[in-house]
Amino acid sequence: MADMTKTSTKTGLPPGTLVHIGEKRTGKVKVTVIQYNEGLYEEREIEEFRECPVRDDSTVTWLNVDGVHQLPLVEKVGGCLGLHPLTLEDIVNTSQFPKLEDYGDYLFIVLKMLYYDEKENEIEVEQISLCLGSNFVVSFQEETGMDVFDPLRERLRSGKSRIRKMGADYLAYSLIDAIVDSYFAILEKLGESIEDLEEEVVTNPGGETVRELHQFKREMIFLRKSVWPLREVIARMQRGESHLIHESIYIYLRDVYDHTIRIIETIETYRDILSGMLDIYLSSVSNRTNSVMKVLTIIATIFMPLTFLAGLYGMNFKYMPELDLHWGYPTLLIVMAVIVITMLVFFRTKKWL
Amino acid sequence: MADMTKTSTKTGLPPGTLVHIGEKRTGKVKVTVIQYNEGLYEEREIEEFRECPVRDDSTVTWLNVDGVHQLPLVEKVGGCLGLHPLTLEDIVNTSQFPKLEDYGDYLFIVLKMLYYDEKENEIEVEQISLCLGSNFVVSFQEETGMDVFDPLRERLRSGKSRIRKMGADYLAYSLIDAIVDSYFAILEKLGESIEDLEEEVVTNPGGETVRELHQFKREMIFLRKSVWPLREVIARMQRGESHLIHESIYIYLRDVYDHTIRIIETIETYRDILSGMLDIYLSSVSNRTNSVMKVLTIIATIFMPLTFLAGLYGMNFKYMPELDLHWGYPTLLIVMAVIVITMLVFFRTKKWL
Amino acid sequence: MADMTKTSTKTGLPPGTLVHIGEKRTGKVKVTVIQYNEGLYEEREIEEFRECPVRDDSTVTWLNVDGVHQLPLVEKVGGCLGLHPLTLEDIVNTSQFPKLEDYGDYLFIVLKMLYYDEKENEIEVEQISLCLGSNFVVSFQEETGMDVFDPLRERLRSGKSRIRKMGADYLAYSLIDAIVDSYFAILEKLGESIEDLEEEVVTNPGGETVRELHQFKREMIFLRKSVWPLREVIARMQRGESHLIHESIYIYLRDVYDHTIRIIETIETYRDILSGMLDIYLSSVSNRTNSVMKVLTIIATIFMPLTFLAGLYGMNFKYMPELDLHWGYPTLLIVMAVIVITMLVFFRTKKWL
Amino acid sequence: MADMTKTSTKTGLPPGTLVHIGEKRTGKVKVTVIQYNEGLYEEREIEEFRECPVRDDSTVTWLNVDGVHQLPLVEKVGGCLGLHPLTLEDIVNTSQFPKLEDYGDYLFIVLKMLYYDEKENEIEVEQISLCLGSNFVVSFQEETGMDVFDPLRERLRSGKSRIRKMGADYLAYSLIDAIVDSYFAILEKLGESIEDLEEEVVTNPGGETVRELHQFKREMIFLRKSVWPLREVIARMQRGESHLIHESIYIYLRDVYDHTIRIIETIETYRDILSGMLDIYLSSVSNRTNSVMKVLTIIATIFMPLTFLAGLYGMNFKYMPELDLHWGYPTLLIVMAVIVITMLVFFRTKKWL
Amino acid sequence: MADMTKTSTKTGLPPGTLVHIGEKRTGKVKVTVIQYNEGLYEEREIEEFRECPVRDDSTVTWLNVDGVHQLPLVEKVGGCLGLHPLTLEDIVNTSQFPKLEDYGDYLFIVLKMLYYDEKENEIEVEQISLCLGSNFVVSFQEETGMDVFDPLRERLRSGKSRIRKMGADYLAYSLIDAIVDSYFAILEKLGESIEDLEEEVVTNPGGETVRELHQFKREMIFLRKSVWPLREVIARMQRGESHLIHESIYIYLRDVYDHTIRIIETIETYRDILSGMLDIYLSSVSNRTNSVMKVLTIIATIFMPLTFLAGLYGMNFKYMPELDLHWGYPTLLIVMAVIVITMLVFFRTKKWL
Repeated sequence: MADMTKTSTKTGLPPGTLVHIGEKRTGKVKVTVIQYNEGLYEEREIEEFRECPVRDDSTVTWLNVDGVHQLPLVEKVGGCLGLHPLTLEDIVNTSQFPKLEDYGDYLFIVLKMLYYDEKENEIEVEQISLCLGSNFVVSFQEETGMDVFDPLRERLRSGKSRIRKMGADYLAYSLIDAIVDSYFAILEKLGESIEDLEEEVVTNPGGETVRELHQFKREMIFLRKSVWPLREVIARMQRGESHLIHESIYIYLRDVYDHTIRIIETIETYRDILSGMLDIYLSSVSNRTNSVMKVLTIIATIFMPLTFLAGLYGMNFKYMPELDLHWGYPTLLIVMAVIVITMLVFFRTKKWL
Repeated sequence: MADMTKTSTKTGLPPGTLVHIGEKRTGKVKVTVIQYNEGLYEEREIEEFRECPVRDDSTVTWLNVDGVHQLPLVEKVGGCLGLHPLTLEDIVNTSQFPKLEDYGDYLFIVLKMLYYDEKENEIEVEQISLCLGSNFVVSFQEETGMDVFDPLRERLRSGKSRIRKMGADYLAYSLIDAIVDSYFAILEKLGESIEDLEEEVVTNPGGETVRELHQFKREMIFLRKSVWPLREVIARMQRGESHLIHESIYIYLRDVYDHTIRIIETIETYRDILSGMLDIYLSSVSNRTNSVMKVLTIIATIFMPLTFLAGLYGMNFKYMPELDLHWGYPTLLIVMAVIVITMLVFFRTKKWL
Repeated sequence: MADMTKTSTKTGLPPGTLVHIGEKRTGKVKVTVIQYNEGLYEEREIEEFRECPVRDDSTVTWLNVDGVHQLPLVEKVGGCLGLHPLTLEDIVNTSQFPKLEDYGDYLFIVLKMLYYDEKENEIEVEQISLCLGSNFVVSFQEETGMDVFDPLRERLRSGKSRIRKMGADYLAYSLIDAIVDSYFAILEKLGESIEDLEEEVVTNPGGETVRELHQFKREMIFLRKSVWPLREVIARMQRGESHLIHESIYIYLRDVYDHTIRIIETIETYRDILSGMLDIYLSSVSNRTNSVMKVLTIIATIFMPLTFLAGLYGMNFKYMPELDLHWGYPTLLIVMAVIVITMLVFFRTKKWL
Repeated sequence: MADMTKTSTKTGLPPGTLVHIGEKRTGKVKVTVIQYNEGLYEEREIEEFRECPVRDDSTVTWLNVDGVHQLPLVEKVGGCLGLHPLTLEDIVNTSQFPKLEDYGDYLFIVLKMLYYDEKENEIEVEQISLCLGSNFVVSFQEETGMDVFDPLRERLRSGKSRIRKMGADYLAYSLIDAIVDSYFAILEKLGESIEDLEEEVVTNPGGETVRELHQFKREMIFLRKSVWPLREVIARMQRGESHLIHESIYIYLRDVYDHTIRIIETIETYRDILSGMLDIYLSSVSNRTNSVMKVLTIIATIFMPLTFLAGLYGMNFKYMPELDLHWGYPTLLIVMAVIVITMLVFFRTKKWL
Repeated sequence: MADMTKTSTKTGLPPGTLVHIGEKRTGKVKVTVIQYNEGLYEEREIEEFRECPVRDDSTVTWLNVDGVHQLPLVEKVGGCLGLHPLTLEDIVNTSQFPKLEDYGDYLFIVLKMLYYDEKENEIEVEQISLCLGSNFVVSFQEETGMDVFDPLRERLRSGKSRIRKMGADYLAYSLIDAIVDSYFAILEKLGESIEDLEEEVVTNPGGETVRELHQFKREMIFLRKSVWPLREVIARMQRGESHLIHESIYIYLRDVYDHTIRIIETIETYRDILSGMLDIYLSSVSNRTNSVMKVLTIIATIFMPLTFLAGLYGMNFKYMPELDLHWGYPTLLIVMAVIVITMLVFFRTKKWL
């Protein structure tokens, strides 16, 4: 699981100082610009970021920065678009929670992209920061080699999509929608793993099971932390506080909001189910201890009296009249058999057998 | 139990794309139209959906679509009534939670119909979507062969019912009321099953019991998720936000709201009782382990000293003066009896017997 | 305990249909009318309900219906006083929660009267419905043979009570006050039973104890469900939403509200204490298992080595030089004594003895 | 601990009827009057309450009644100051929770004074009722022989205190402040006892420990019930709802409010710690059972094979060739030693030794 | 861990009386004054506090008092700056929670500085009180030899920092920011310790582990109490209630607020993880008891029948025909081997081996 507790150690630095916090990455940072309106579509990769690609209000500009560990580049982009130093600080610090901040000229939105690593059974997290201006969206991703926005680009290129007719706010909505939709896939995979584990708890619980339960619980805590604030972010977007989001977008935001609610509900359900599974596990361990104890008690209860009797007639007293009886030995064997049968009947009435 | 975690895997598709999500069904879709006012009543089945059956404001039109897996049909119905693409997307995606959305011209309401499968001890769920316009109600059901609205149709046909004198809003209310009423039946059956289980926990708990408890808990989680948002839906309907619902209906909505509250309270009560039952179960397992241990300890405590004594006089030392005593053997037997009696008295004072 | 899960099975019936839901009763329904003002007091029993007994505003009319299973009578009373069909439906359905509904002309209040059956250790519940009009109060009780309103009638008759000078709202308050006061008596008896159980948990816990704990917990859940909504009912009454309740009554309602809060707090306290008792119980079972285990271990640890030694010298090897030693037997006895003493010292340092 | 469940059994009596509820006391009731302003200070004890001691607005009158079981006296005081019958009913019923009621002419405040009885390890509770008028404060205490207001009287007498320059509202604040401050002392003592218990849980847990834990938990529940509503009382006092409290007092009330918050937080902390202690206790019992089991298993596992071998060669078969070997016995002893060593090594690898 | 329950024992003293509450310290109190504006920077230590160092509005004055146990000094500082007696009382009482109080002329802010003592595995706490006036900030620290404000002083001295251009409110923000940032370091260290413990719980749990868990839980409770109210403090600062904080500062306060939220979330996450670890611990103890029991049962089940058989043929009956058979002994050995093999197969099918 991604480390959920990585925190900043910037004590003493003035606010607005850019320090990259997060997994150290060294890959090349890729900057792409997509500019479009209903009739126009341009897409290019920028080798060296020199001048500001945002144009007038007739075109929407989508600037995508893939990699936030090159601080000078982030600063240049920020400078060109007039981003506040605190915004830039948050972009390069990848330990943020989802949040929405209104800087007047632009909205700053932090989101968490999640990938499920099935081999390691872990959730990978990537921070995605969006700045939504009147005619541009800048998206900052960590450089991970994965890109959830590809289908969106495809739709942009095709020209027939509604997105080409709408403004920057609809583009921002589409980016958020793509991220939220990807959560469903993660939940589905987690759901399958949890059902497997549930099967295991019922049929063959062991020490490993509890550790897996604990692992899933941690992942649920982590997911919850990533999704819960997102709900508030989207709720605030559709509350009409900013002029950057037009009323025509509200209906779409309501739809994403709805998805977020469903995701949160599903996470809560999983948590409840995981808690219930621990109860099953503990009671099954108790049950097995109980049944082990029964075996032991049955064995001990049957053989202890017999062994005693055998020992009794193994004594070397001079005068033990039973020992001289011709039928002594067969009689004792019969007595022992009676004892065994009595015990077995007793255990059956106690439902131990 | 119905899969509560089925989620959409639509990542990358533009919003408003129709994708049927839910159990795959292939049955024929049935479309029925009922049109009525105080004097008039017409009911017909539509073979091919061609033209829009909704008439002027003097008649109420109830269009019932039984099966949402034929996307072109859903699209045609949506087109004829002016439903928003996002509405249609939600209708064919049967993994929604109950919700109310106000699209201005119509209210879109998602509900969950529940059936209790007594053989499988499972709750089956069906999504029912309602669109309430000024003079029409469209209801979309999954094609399940069951129809909770039959008694309502009967009342419509009879002509003497209040429903014939009222508008589309009262029809929508009646549909919701029928669904909510059906929950009571489910709860009653669940309540009986839980009482049976409670009896079992007390009299004869076993490993199976915990699994059943867990199953009931999951069903309660599931029920809660289906009913809880319904409360908000109905509360919003009677809050007077939409002109589509007249004030004269509020008193009836308050009544359904009340029923919803009662259902939620009952679910919470069941959850509390189920939690308590797990406590009983665990403490009864502990108690049984405890009593098994007592039997073992009693047996061991009585026979170990006896066996030792028997072994002692089975030794082959040359000089063991006791062995030659004439009363040695009877004396030892008496000593053993005294030991046994002492032990039994000891156990009785400890209340182990 | 009263069945807390009895629910309606009215699916399909139109709203407002009268169906008696609750314990089947067949006793005779008694209708009494009391009419009073400061100077006047009339009390009579009505054999056949024919005409409406409510007079002008100068007198307060209290109509008490003892039994709600005779639906025609309830309908007649409702017709005479102009009660809404939904009100009548709620009156005869005795599975309501406490609630307040404002029908404009009258307030409809549902309350729960509780009786504690000490023999069965169960709480009996009776639904009491009040309709408060401008100059009348109608109270519907289930026909149970018990009547909590007798002291109130006594006060009315005496003439010197404040109640004779006040309106119908004060009468309604007095009825509610009488019911709320009776809860204290129930709580006191439950409190005593819980203290007895607490004593039992500490001194002599057994399997029965947990079942009693569970039973008390269920009763607390049930009580909570009956009292919790009552708080809201009274709060709404003193919020001044209805012209039927005069401001001069608010101070009295505040007093009852206060009592309700105290009752709820006491119930919560009992729940907390009951939870704590389960903890004590479980830890005492663990402790007892632990001490049983110690006895077993001590016995086994002492006698197993001894039995082994005895067995060793019971072997029939030809050449066992110890057997021929004259002091062999006494020496072995001493060795055994030393082993026993060592073990006992060991157990004492481990604080097992 | 003080009985937290004493409740009223007044069913049937009209509201406003004075019935003393609480511990029966028979001591003499002491009434003292203190009247002061910046220049004046008079203090006297009243033998027989005849006339109303409250003067004009230039002096503040503090009437302290020590004992509320003499109902006629309480009625006389109430009559002289114009207290509402419901107020008097609450004063003599010492099972109230803290509350504030605004009767227009005066504020009625119920508080709980707590004393910690270290011998019995119990919290004693005393109800203190205050009525704050424009120029007087009446305080009703139960007659307990203890008086938390003595230091306050001292400050009043000294003349140099701020209190002499302020009005009745500041006096009321001072009384509340004295009571709240005394809670800190209780918490400190409880804190020490809890730390002692924590030490005991870790070093030497026993059955008694759990009962003490339960006792502390009950006391925390009780404390919480006494302090929690107090927070609301003080919050409402500084909300400016009553003209009887001047704005200049708000800053002091905020200070007491702050103390109340701190007390509540400390109580919550104690509850959390006590819950944690139960976990430690239960896991330590499990651990001890586990280690007892290990001892038993080690002993059994070592001696059972040995005893079997000894028994084997104690058999009386005619043809047992080993018995005749000269080195049979020593060889067997060596085999046994090897078995023991193997077992010990095994247990060590399992970390049981 | 710092004592979280130290409380005041000031009962009876008038409000506003200065009593130093907290760890007794005797070190020298150090008072430093820093005065600056964009062009000016002065820093000096004050030996004897005589006159008020605050100047006109063109300079910001930061007065730092290192040590609050010299009450006369605190009183002098308070007098010079016009601080309310209740403020001074709170400054010298170091058992406060974080809070913000608006005294009109100045804001009084209480904060908690935390240090993590890695040797003792304890969190040390220091109370820091700030008073923010229009042109000054006074900070009171306990004299601990540690100073978190050093990097801030460095920035002030350098002259190029934004802080020199801003007012006293930005200085106060910077002080708070420095404190909040230091929490992250504490959390990071705690996070590492918790991960170590998690490893230990999984690999090698023991009695000590639970005590460490409990210790961490207490520290989380303590941290939560220190940070939770801080959130409200900062929220109120940016709510624009006071003219002392300019709107230009809100954006920075929002940033600190955000950090506080992240800290609180991290603490909650740790609490959840610690709870989960206790579950793992308990289930692993149960598992180990279960596996110990299995070993015991296997040993007993195998050797008890064998020992019985050996005892049987050790009996001294005259007529035991088996004893005389030549193949008796080898046959018995084979029978015994069959029994052992049967048992082992049985245990394997039960998955005990």
